[in-house]
Amino acid sequence: MTRAAVFGAGSWGTAFAQVLADGGASSVTLWARRQEVAQEVRERHTNDDYLPGVELPPAVTGTTDPAEAAEGADLVVLAVPSQSLRDNLGRWAQVVPEDALVVSLMKGIERGTGLRMSQVVEAAGIERDRIVVVSGPNLSKEIAARQPAASVVACTDLAAAERVASTIAPPYFRPYTQTDVVGAEIGGAVKNVIALGVGMAEGLGYGDNTKSSLITRGLAEISRLGEALGGDPATLMGLAGVGDLIATCMSPLSRNHRVGVALGQGRSVEEMVAVPHQTAEGVRSCRSVVDLAAGHGVDMPICQGVTAVVEGHVTPEQLTGALMSRARKHERG
Amino acid sequence: MTRAAVFGAGSWGTAFAQVLADGGASSVTLWARRQEVAQEVRERHTNDDYLPGVELPPAVTGTTDPAEAAEGADLVVLAVPSQSLRDNLGRWAQVVPEDALVVSLMKGIERGTGLRMSQVVEAAGIERDRIVVVSGPNLSKEIAARQPAASVVACTDLAAAERVASTIAPPYFRPYTQTDVVGAEIGGAVKNVIALGVGMAEGLGYGDNTKSSLITRGLAEISRLGEALGGDPATLMGLAGVGDLIATCMSPLSRNHRVGVALGQGRSVEEMVAVPHQTAEGVRSCRSVVDLAAGHGVDMPICQGVTAVVEGHVTPEQLTGALMSRARKHERG
Repeated sequence: MTRAAVFGAGSWGTAFAQVLADGGASSVTLWARRQEVAQEVRERHTNDDYLPGVELPPAVTGTTDPAEAAEGADLVVLAVPSQSLRDNLGRWAQVVPEDALVVSLMKGIERGTGLRMSQVVEAAGIERDRIVVVSGPNLSKEIAARQPAASVVACTDLAAAERVASTIAPPYFRPYTQTDVVGAEIGGAVKNVIALGVGMAEGLGYGDNTKSSLITRGLAEISRLGEALGGDPATLMGLAGVGDLIATCMSPLSRNHRVGVALGQGRSVEEMVAVPHQTAEGVRSCRSVVDLAAGHGVDMPICQGVTAVVEGHVTPEQLTGALMSRARKHERG
Repeated sequence: MTRAAVFGAGSWGTAFAQVLADGGASSVTLWARRQEVAQEVRERHTNDDYLPGVELPPAVTGTTDPAEAAEGADLVVLAVPSQSLRDNLGRWAQVVPEDALVVSLMKGIERGTGLRMSQVVEAAGIERDRIVVVSGPNLSKEIAARQPAASVVACTDLAAAERVASTIAPPYFRPYTQTDVVGAEIGGAVKNVIALGVGMAEGLGYGDNTKSSLITRGLAEISRLGEALGGDPATLMGLAGVGDLIATCMSPLSRNHRVGVALGQGRSVEEMVAVPHQTAEGVRSCRSVVDLAAGHGVDMPICQGVTAVVEGHVTPEQLTGALMSRARKHERG
């Protein structure tokens, strides 16, 4: 029987705790930063700030003590905001059991270093063959409602990926194993930035033709970056690439999409960042995605434009106008 | 100055006539099957059955006489339901001027023969190098509203594609030239079938994770078939593949998507086929797509399942259940 710890009680960490419990884990301990959240999970099996109305399985409990969460765990899941991972791991790395697999649910690129989340985990002393990335079209509220979803489970060690896959396979969740960790992480990190851009177009009143074109060109950007970093383009045509991109860009449940719409409608980045429990990873990660691409000579006009909007250099109108009027004649440009 | 004829006054033919006129064509003659539609276009510059509320440019006129429509045309555009093309061309082929380019807007596979639309045109005696396919995320109502959209313009002769592209480039429409006619046509034909399946899932109450997963697996099916027929998989990762697929699968403006939703909600195929002006190409083309795939040994479980629903052998519930529970462990399956 699997004993799991989930670090991070946001909407995805909490929904994933449910997936683990429904998949047969004997215990799932959710670590929360705030005492009141840990207590609510432990005593009432709910987390109303992040997943209102959802009742968690009895096997899910809560704590604010990292050592208590990780004790005896076979599986340690990391689900914190990507820019806070390094600091958090500084405090947690020593409590992770030596033989536990470490699962990353995080989608972002570290600012300053350009590292993917699994690289930040590795830098904290966890061996690469124990680090497993889960990524796909996984809107938390739908998973919590036990709607069918599929996801990629990637690890350089296929056997480790299979071990994780076998523990997160309740009837509504279908894990597909992979060894392309780079592709899975790049798909997850960049789609948030593209979703901001698509949201901006929607907020400006553009329709589905425009949004589909932006998603298609965004997919090409993701693919170019993934390949430049050693990932397999085929991964980005799968669930962790196009699948996650579509869900994030089209769903009103996606925070990045929603923040993009608000920006397109004329609200400011400062205003949106101030909304509690609504961190849009794309806002925090766009600069590091663009820097990483520049370092590898990869052209990413949509990501560059979104970053310019987030940093206040251009308006969403100017960005969308510029993207739709770029000179380009042949499709493979 | 370009003189254009558009055969077929449905929503896409009519919106495309506007694109031609806005792109600078000196005259655009829209051929309609019904006298009242031709007269409405000619006298009032509207086509309220198909594009309610849209005022067409003055250069667009209407007729029911094929010879009158085609006379002196440099560009002959075909925009009729795919299963009626062969019969129609039997009557029209002799009026097409010998040096005119023939543009196909049609998305389907001919029943019985398994031919793509450009192949049916070629069988009517038009040389391959004069046949140009336009395909992409082009919801008619949004184009008529002059919302920005992009599309692929494909011909085995790149110069012919460029000639067409230069005549359909008003500020809101961006043509990208291509020589991969097979890829462009397969993307357009199969996406209608996938959109029916995605609509069914939506009608049954499934959310964006499920729909995104179906679209992703559907894209893999389209790609496999395109490649088996000699198309370039890269085309299917572009506007005519993933772009068109996303627009069709997600937009409430897409007829195929809408019919799929209705089927998922329990309405019958017969009921949906009876709605006027609402031909869902996917309903008519699914059988020929599946037969074509079978003839080339290509596995297309979503298309096969949709066809089984359309033909009354299984229910949408059974199809969606079967698709979500297929045994599959590694992503490249």
